[in-house]
Amino acid sequence: MKSPSNESLWVNESCIEVIDQRLLPFEYKTFQIVSLDDACFAIQEMVVRGAPLIGVTAAFGMYLALKQGQNADPIIWMKTAKQKLDSTRPTAVNLMYATHRMLQFFKDNAEGANANPNLMLEEACRIRDEEIYSCSRIGENGLAIIASISDKKPDRSVQILTHCNAGWLATVKWGTALAPIYWAHEAGIPVHVWVDETRPRNQGARLTAWELGNAGIPHTVISDNSGGHLMQNGLVDMVIVGSDRTAANGDVANKIGTYLKAVAAADNNIPFYVALPTSTFDLTLPEGIGKIPIEEREASEVAYIEGWDGNKIAKVRLIPEDSPVANYGFDVTPSRLIALLITEKGTCRAESTAIRELIEKG
Amino acid sequence: MKSPSNESLWVNESCIEVIDQRLLPFEYKTFQIVSLDDACFAIQEMVVRGAPLIGVTAAFGMYLALKQGQNADPIIWMKTAKQKLDSTRPTAVNLMYATHRMLQFFKDNAEGANANPNLMLEEACRIRDEEIYSCSRIGENGLAIIASISDKKPDRSVQILTHCNAGWLATVKWGTALAPIYWAHEAGIPVHVWVDETRPRNQGARLTAWELGNAGIPHTVISDNSGGHLMQNGLVDMVIVGSDRTAANGDVANKIGTYLKAVAAADNNIPFYVALPTSTFDLTLPEGIGKIPIEEREASEVAYIEGWDGNKIAKVRLIPEDSPVANYGFDVTPSRLIALLITEKGTCRAESTAIRELIEKG
Repeated sequence: MKSPSNESLWVNESCIEVIDQRLLPFEYKTFQIVSLDDACFAIQEMVVRGAPLIGVTAAFGMYLALKQGQNADPIIWMKTAKQKLDSTRPTAVNLMYATHRMLQFFKDNAEGANANPNLMLEEACRIRDEEIYSCSRIGENGLAIIASISDKKPDRSVQILTHCNAGWLATVKWGTALAPIYWAHEAGIPVHVWVDETRPRNQGARLTAWELGNAGIPHTVISDNSGGHLMQNGLVDMVIVGSDRTAANGDVANKIGTYLKAVAAADNNIPFYVALPTSTFDLTLPEGIGKIPIEEREASEVAYIEGWDGNKIAKVRLIPEDSPVANYGFDVTPSRLIALLITEKGTCRAESTAIRELIEKG
Repeated sequence: MKSPSNESLWVNESCIEVIDQRLLPFEYKTFQIVSLDDACFAIQEMVVRGAPLIGVTAAFGMYLALKQGQNADPIIWMKTAKQKLDSTRPTAVNLMYATHRMLQFFKDNAEGANANPNLMLEEACRIRDEEIYSCSRIGENGLAIIASISDKKPDRSVQILTHCNAGWLATVKWGTALAPIYWAHEAGIPVHVWVDETRPRNQGARLTAWELGNAGIPHTVISDNSGGHLMQNGLVDMVIVGSDRTAANGDVANKIGTYLKAVAAADNNIPFYVALPTSTFDLTLPEGIGKIPIEEREASEVAYIEGWDGNKIAKVRLIPEDSPVANYGFDVTPSRLIALLITEKGTCRAESTAIRELIEKG
């Protein structure tokens, strides 16, 4: 009951197929995307999540829009399709990038007499393949870091703490933060992963634990409160997380709670790594703290939790009925706490000049 | 539907009555303790929790043992009662202290011809009253700190973050970490409390939120991951927590996750206070990290969570069926991160000499 070769999205003869991530780890079901509306639904309802996967799904949504809509005025129809997709998760930068690129490709190559949906399918597949390639490069670049930590340990084993899910479920294949871990595991380095539960949405407990379990990688789920204790007691060799947005100076916005792990890692001289595609750099922001807008999400995500009641996924309330809740989705880890950024173009210090040089690299 | 004057335990004509804390905040029910076995059950099954309240409950358990057991050989009977109570939560120091004191009192004052359960009841009430007095003094000493922070703010409001439950539900009245907050609220200082959910057992979301809501104190429940973000953005003026055990140098063992908040507070120049009765000092331990034994608790506390399903308290599973879990109950906050210790005898720096001088104070 696994996707073909641990990918979160694949192309079938008749449709695009994704894993329904709303049900993991309790049920494994796939979701078939056969139309533009299906793609919008999958993104909006979080059948798929993770910025890179959202972008790729939207690209295929643009292909499906053309495939089904050839009777209408194609350019108006495609612009409407882009608008529909863009409005499903308005803050997702990768989404806008993908729909913009697909619309541009349509104008350049597929409009009018040449309106051939297969060309659009090929372009969507290119976006997907670029995404996979980028993550594989992050994996390879991160592997070198894990290997060098392993070399310094008598038993070669490396204890890695991660927060949230930045694995192949959030991308298409490999992931960002998890990519180096998969590469290390395949290279025969004995790794063990501490998986932060990641309240309120529990992406760690639900998705990262599921991914690692499927891959046969030793891991242990812990409450978000536990990481500091583990670090104090020599049970963590390195921390690795993903990034939602990275400022020009290397400040990293990532899932709420990331900063707490970074500051504890610094207090215990444990290297803290961030794995990210260079597309998450936002060089218009000189720094992150107070500058990267932090999404406030629904109170219900904290007040309620989803789990398996033995028969089905059920939701239970966790707090008094009249207690207010605050639910910040992300926090910012200052660059001074980050040992290295790991990207598809190589690694670099979390510092303006190094970042600029890395990005300018071909 | 509240206990008389916000106390977690009270004496009725026929029994001792406590709030059944297993059901809060979803249901308010009291639990009647009429026998030694009831007292053992209440402690073991966590009808009552919190070291001070466990101790007081055990003291009344010794009284009830004598009341019901006068036919048997009293001294053997009372020693057996102590053993039974002590084995319910073997690591609870307050429990041993209370049963030891009650047994000693029995030997000195109530044995033989004088075997009068009412004398034992009076001694148990003295233990309860000392506990209440100690917490009220912590409240008063902590109030001075909150007032001085308030005085420096234009709108006088004080934003306080707390972790776990160290309120009157964990003691008998007032609490430790929450006592200064209650005193500040009654003194008219506008306080707002950020309540850490406190996974895995959610004492913050369930108990602290309930306590503060009942008292009409403005508060907001947050995931344990959120505190760092709030601190970075000027939304926290002080942090205050309790302590389970404090080493001679001021290192504090408290609920898992406390250290993460302390290290983030230091990173943001926010004072971090620990409120504790001097009875939690363990001067046999020169320092805490690696020295205070940290309880590893059941995996099920992380793998499952309890909440309200609309009709009843229900348990749901949060992680993949075959993922391992680690569940450390406490962590140690190094004294260098602590601004002040707040005790019933006054405040002091978290440092060996200051602590010794404070304890030696009458």
